[in-house]
Amino acid sequence: MTTSTSARTSTSTGNRGETVNPASPAIDTESVTALLERGRQLATPVLRAAVDRLAPPMDTVAAYHFGWIDAAGRPASGDGGKAVRPALALLSAQAAGQPPEVGVPGAVAVELVHNFSLLHDDLMDGDEQRRHRDTVWKVHGPAQAILVGDALFALANEILLELGTVEAGRATRRLTVATRKLIDGQAQDISYEHRERVTVEECLEMEGNKTGALLACAVSIGAVLGGADDRTADILERYGYHLGLAFQAVDDLLGIWGDPDATGKQTWSDLRQRKKSLPVVAALAADNPAAERLAGILAADAKKSEDEIADFTEEEFASRAALIEEAGGREWTSQEARRQHATAIAALDEVDMPAPVRAQLVALADFVVVRER
Amino acid sequence: MTTSTSARTSTSTGNRGETVNPASPAIDTESVTALLERGRQLATPVLRAAVDRLAPPMDTVAAYHFGWIDAAGRPASGDGGKAVRPALALLSAQAAGQPPEVGVPGAVAVELVHNFSLLHDDLMDGDEQRRHRDTVWKVHGPAQAILVGDALFALANEILLELGTVEAGRATRRLTVATRKLIDGQAQDISYEHRERVTVEECLEMEGNKTGALLACAVSIGAVLGGADDRTADILERYGYHLGLAFQAVDDLLGIWGDPDATGKQTWSDLRQRKKSLPVVAALAADNPAAERLAGILAADAKKSEDEIADFTEEEFASRAALIEEAGGREWTSQEARRQHATAIAALDEVDMPAPVRAQLVALADFVVVRER
Repeated sequence: MTTSTSARTSTSTGNRGETVNPASPAIDTESVTALLERGRQLATPVLRAAVDRLAPPMDTVAAYHFGWIDAAGRPASGDGGKAVRPALALLSAQAAGQPPEVGVPGAVAVELVHNFSLLHDDLMDGDEQRRHRDTVWKVHGPAQAILVGDALFALANEILLELGTVEAGRATRRLTVATRKLIDGQAQDISYEHRERVTVEECLEMEGNKTGALLACAVSIGAVLGGADDRTADILERYGYHLGLAFQAVDDLLGIWGDPDATGKQTWSDLRQRKKSLPVVAALAADNPAAERLAGILAADAKKSEDEIADFTEEEFASRAALIEEAGGREWTSQEARRQHATAIAALDEVDMPAPVRAQLVALADFVVVRER
Repeated sequence: MTTSTSARTSTSTGNRGETVNPASPAIDTESVTALLERGRQLATPVLRAAVDRLAPPMDTVAAYHFGWIDAAGRPASGDGGKAVRPALALLSAQAAGQPPEVGVPGAVAVELVHNFSLLHDDLMDGDEQRRHRDTVWKVHGPAQAILVGDALFALANEILLELGTVEAGRATRRLTVATRKLIDGQAQDISYEHRERVTVEECLEMEGNKTGALLACAVSIGAVLGGADDRTADILERYGYHLGLAFQAVDDLLGIWGDPDATGKQTWSDLRQRKKSLPVVAALAADNPAAERLAGILAADAKKSEDEIADFTEEEFASRAALIEEAGGREWTSQEARRQHATAIAALDEVDMPAPVRAQLVALADFVVVRER
């Protein structure tokens, strides 16, 4: 893969808060909202019943993480995330000609694995905020973050395997493989933090593992539970994998230029953590004066302590973001999101499915690349 | 359940290093050694191949944990543990009339789950030594201990599910349930550390979850992979569960009175950590002057910092151990190991199996209660 940033510099001012939408397809927002809401409606009761199985205090800690209660244990209607994965798992069942309900155990299992990884990653990365609230390790301590993460992972397998069918075994196997890739991705992410240089290819491989694999599984799991064959499941996973890469490219844009009110993260969040995300590695891969200046600045930053970075002014972060943009990293990542989006949509042509289901998968892909949180 | 400690005080001196064997059946050590060795021989190559699938640096970290390499990455032939679980999984297959090889994927999966829990528990508990070496979080950092633990857990399911059989799905379901109990047990263990009083019943429940459940699964998993029905598997699990409780009772004795050269742990290991293990809770449940004195001392200890406890002299730990013994906690725990051992053996009568297999399960149970490490 070659980056297309080398000969181009952006003319945008790159102010934070400016929209980061890499594409503006005419998306049917109402239909996507309804789709995400349906996923939540069908999956949440089963998810809550699953979490209720946990021994105290893990049930309470998990309920806090999902936003069902606050830190003091009072009922809350917190932000449980975008719920893209449950919506996909239900559509997945429909893609195999089954009612959406067939996908519910898959939706719940994937959501459990996703949240297992959030609990552990937040602890490993030292992230203090998620979904506008303190993270679990911050409120309940590292041991609870580890334990409850472990319990959610086990619960995911339990929910599927207690169906007792051959299909459930196949679904669990796919989920397990996806979970291992997700762990590989987190391992790569951590190891990249200690390296001076990461290539665009390495970054994409890491993001494919960390985000693509589980989204892929969400898109196949309902179909597998509904009896789809491996070929169909593999094609659906291809759509989900590239959707995941598009999703992550947008996430990487939001991690630098996102509006904190929308994302629930700090300003310049990924720059504060010195993350080698796509815009950064693409900018560094460019052959222009901005890329050279950026490389010098980031090399100097790498020698600084975490406290020194935390003490940076808004202007210091803004100047780094501007250099990333000037080198072409922002524009390349926007284009990459569009490319992955197109590849995802193209995969859908290879499998027979009801036309309305296909339309909804397309609408969801459109939503993923235009979202602002 | 009532403890039998109330009216009895021990007359033993309770010196550390004195044998802690709660029972001395005439065990066939040679046969047990051969059995454990067979388990290692058959399971280790498959285990190593599984660990080789992990992305770097997780493969190296896992190899260190299993004792295959040292901290500098040089090949080592470290102590990989007693390998009781693999031996049980192979016997389990034979109990169902199958060759031991049928149990190998089960042996490997159970060993992976066991080591996943060791990696996470050592981190949560702050344990710095295991099997005579520094623990993974100590050598490679907390993030690697979390990540590699997660990866081993996922790998356990992967190894079983890629068999692709209905039996593999059933085996994975049992393993998942056992893993959840194991996590419940660790959660209970942690919560008990912050409580002033823990009952003997609560301690046994915790140990049943933390140790009994996975040993139970080891004893059923080979049979399930070999096509045994649920009734047979349940009875085998009953044997394994009580074997686990006997095992843990001995572990609790070794945790106070074990010889550090044999156990690989510090002297008075569990007292240093203020663990509310069986001898301690049984002693506190007794109605005698020693129990009262012990309660007063432990209540005062609870208010001290970890550093203050670490600064205790050998004599201070020895006097606490002597009080536990005088109150009857040591003798009660020895008897409890014998009771659980007898219950385990009795379960074997309820299921038809080849006589030599039954004899080996009995020998293994005998070994578990007389071991000194």
